[in-house]
Amino acid sequence: MSIYVEIVEDSKQFTDILAVASGYEIDEVAYTYVEIDEVGIQFYGRDWMKLRLMKLVYDLRIEIDEVVATIYVEIDEVYTIYVEIDEVGIQFTQRLDQSERMAEEKVLNWGICGAGKISNDFCSAMMTLSRYEREHKITAIAARSQEKAQKFADIFEAPKAYGSYTDVANDPEIEIVYIGVIHTEHVRLSMMMLEAGKHVVCEKPLAPTWQECKKVLDYAKEKKLLFLEAAWSRFFPVYDAIKEEVNSGKLGDISMVTTQFCVPIMSVERLNKKDLMGGVLLDIGIYCIQFACHVYGEMPEKIIATGSLNEEGVDEDGCVILLYSGNRKASLVYSGKTVFGNNTATILGSKGQIFVDDCFWCPKSVKLTETTLENKIPEGPSPYNFYNSGGLRYEADHAFKLIRSGQLDSPKYGYKDVEMIHKIIDEISKQIGLKY
Amino acid sequence: MSIYVEIVEDSKQFTDILAVASGYEIDEVAYTYVEIDEVGIQFYGRDWMKLRLMKLVYDLRIEIDEVVATIYVEIDEVYTIYVEIDEVGIQFTQRLDQSERMAEEKVLNWGICGAGKISNDFCSAMMTLSRYEREHKITAIAARSQEKAQKFADIFEAPKAYGSYTDVANDPEIEIVYIGVIHTEHVRLSMMMLEAGKHVVCEKPLAPTWQECKKVLDYAKEKKLLFLEAAWSRFFPVYDAIKEEVNSGKLGDISMVTTQFCVPIMSVERLNKKDLMGGVLLDIGIYCIQFACHVYGEMPEKIIATGSLNEEGVDEDGCVILLYSGNRKASLVYSGKTVFGNNTATILGSKGQIFVDDCFWCPKSVKLTETTLENKIPEGPSPYNFYNSGGLRYEADHAFKLIRSGQLDSPKYGYKDVEMIHKIIDEISKQIGLKY
Repeated sequence: MSIYVEIVEDSKQFTDILAVASGYEIDEVAYTYVEIDEVGIQFYGRDWMKLRLMKLVYDLRIEIDEVVATIYVEIDEVYTIYVEIDEVGIQFTQRLDQSERMAEEKVLNWGICGAGKISNDFCSAMMTLSRYEREHKITAIAARSQEKAQKFADIFEAPKAYGSYTDVANDPEIEIVYIGVIHTEHVRLSMMMLEAGKHVVCEKPLAPTWQECKKVLDYAKEKKLLFLEAAWSRFFPVYDAIKEEVNSGKLGDISMVTTQFCVPIMSVERLNKKDLMGGVLLDIGIYCIQFACHVYGEMPEKIIATGSLNEEGVDEDGCVILLYSGNRKASLVYSGKTVFGNNTATILGSKGQIFVDDCFWCPKSVKLTETTLENKIPEGPSPYNFYNSGGLRYEADHAFKLIRSGQLDSPKYGYKDVEMIHKIIDEISKQIGLKY
Repeated sequence: MSIYVEIVEDSKQFTDILAVASGYEIDEVAYTYVEIDEVGIQFYGRDWMKLRLMKLVYDLRIEIDEVVATIYVEIDEVYTIYVEIDEVGIQFTQRLDQSERMAEEKVLNWGICGAGKISNDFCSAMMTLSRYEREHKITAIAARSQEKAQKFADIFEAPKAYGSYTDVANDPEIEIVYIGVIHTEHVRLSMMMLEAGKHVVCEKPLAPTWQECKKVLDYAKEKKLLFLEAAWSRFFPVYDAIKEEVNSGKLGDISMVTTQFCVPIMSVERLNKKDLMGGVLLDIGIYCIQFACHVYGEMPEKIIATGSLNEEGVDEDGCVILLYSGNRKASLVYSGKTVFGNNTATILGSKGQIFVDDCFWCPKSVKLTETTLENKIPEGPSPYNFYNSGGLRYEADHAFKLIRSGQLDSPKYGYKDVEMIHKIIDEISKQIGLKY
């Protein structure tokens, strides 16, 4: 039996809990990256830790009955740890009590708006989640034509196919809607779904201006529903590890952040059209901005933007400098006019650096000061259209956790993040003369 | 016998000559990077071409008598090809006539000003040239103290050691001077050496302003002497290959250039001092600027510069955007406040890209559209202080060729290049408030 195990970073809280549960010394599980929230614990371990972890599994008297298996093990009266083993790795999840576990197990019924490339990738990626069938169900697909919806539904074995987005809003079985349609429809459909009482995950950009974004966020807040702008990068476990490393002080004083996102997307017709909300700032520049925001976590003091507009008035490339307090800087480069670039990101400090590999917005590996993290992602049932799209699984997983724990403002990419990023977009748009 | 051979790019002119000389078809030596100037031909071949090249050597009836050997072979009355084989590779050099060969063989007597780290690296690198003893001689070393100069002279077996730079100027045996002293002395010593009738290779920056640089260049021109600001990157064979690829049209429309040069040099005391001409723009930013100039070959239409000054008023880092005609851009990032960064450069076009590996200013490898070039550099007799300093050998080699062919304005980095780069430095300095 081959099990992939990945360990990322130490977490005192996790080791404490595991020490209580297992009787092991805390050091035994050092260098473990752990995500702890209301729902449970997840961690990823490096290959060399495999044996040690297997020993731990053994000592906890966990029986592994199949390669792909979910095993619940009651350690003692306080902690219930369950272990999942699939082709991706081992996950230990610790749950606080039985009632919470039951709450989690209520399946989230998804309505998917749009049967295009990104919706395909989202559904395919979601289905790779080890708890997919217990936690998620693709209940309905809606597209502009019934035929297209049905074809998509067949691929993902969705029981319902709608030729209209309104049908999704009207379907009482659907609890959450994923909006993967053209940018220009994001606000209208988001408002429609929120009005119908659905949680929403909407592809970025939600809207070209912060003012329009705010309208949607305010309405979600009012309706007590989750609204998640789908900044999928932020939900990658390695992005948590980046943030943890940044906050740990290991890099010393961080003063420089760089990103490059260059892809030949201006060859796509939609991207050239103003009435279809084309251009690169909203499509790829936004990823560079979110990266700088992820590192610095505050508004820049000054924004210096360049960007070339095409004949229709949408932007084709840009070089942007963000100046933060204390002389900290970020240099962002993005273009839709070139071949695929060297699309990496760096965070440079006085003591260490983080290097996020190509492509930084959905990286397969990240070099931290002392270690390199691999972020292995399984193939989904339907081939992905975009690079490393399997990482959309984290977005779906995150939405589930938020909803089931009653958290309606994501700690990974919440209201304040949307505001920061879109206010920067507003300023860049103003400086380069971009207006939709 | 193991021979390293590197082939870079095709050249019609070379293959034509070789076809005449050898009777081979031109296609036989395709993918050969060739430098052709008044002095001769040099080329580097890829590993897979080794056997073919060896066959060519054989067919040309070249006898290889030792691993490190120089073999002259008269092919016919018109062309004399000689072949050198050393630990670095094979070089074919074609000379036009006997008298020119004799002219070349006059040794260039070097006076070295400064016995510090960069002078060590320059001398050590120069001594790795296969034609070192025939073309170069380190005749004298001058330092601020006789003792320091003598110590340095002993390492490099230089016959003379001077405790004063004036002694170098007064030494009639010395034909060319390398100036590797502190920045603040560059102009004064350059003028002194030119006045004494010496050719000069002076470390960059020649001066903090174009106006001061111009004074030196004008004087060199008046005196009919070579003055080379030591932008060593420009003399790497891979930099020629980059330029050739840029000019070839293979990249399509080039619209984005990026560079990163981040190294912890603000820990060096001199770099923090205004009276010692510290700061990063002149020390490392200049490399980013020369790279953009190498690619675009013209003045940007607009320069947008940021840079943080320390308490003494010298700059510690910077993000600069250069905007060129036709919406072409360059994004430059440099910092002396961080650990060693991901110091690569990219040139992005609509059809292809060039990726210059860490460190882009003295790269060991460059990815062109269709091939990756390795730039292997041998170790010198005295260990290098700086990364890949062995590349300084190209600078010395270039100076020799220019002088012996009577060219006093370098085609690789001449008067117009110094002017372009220093005018950009002037504008950046103005924008960030840097003044010496």
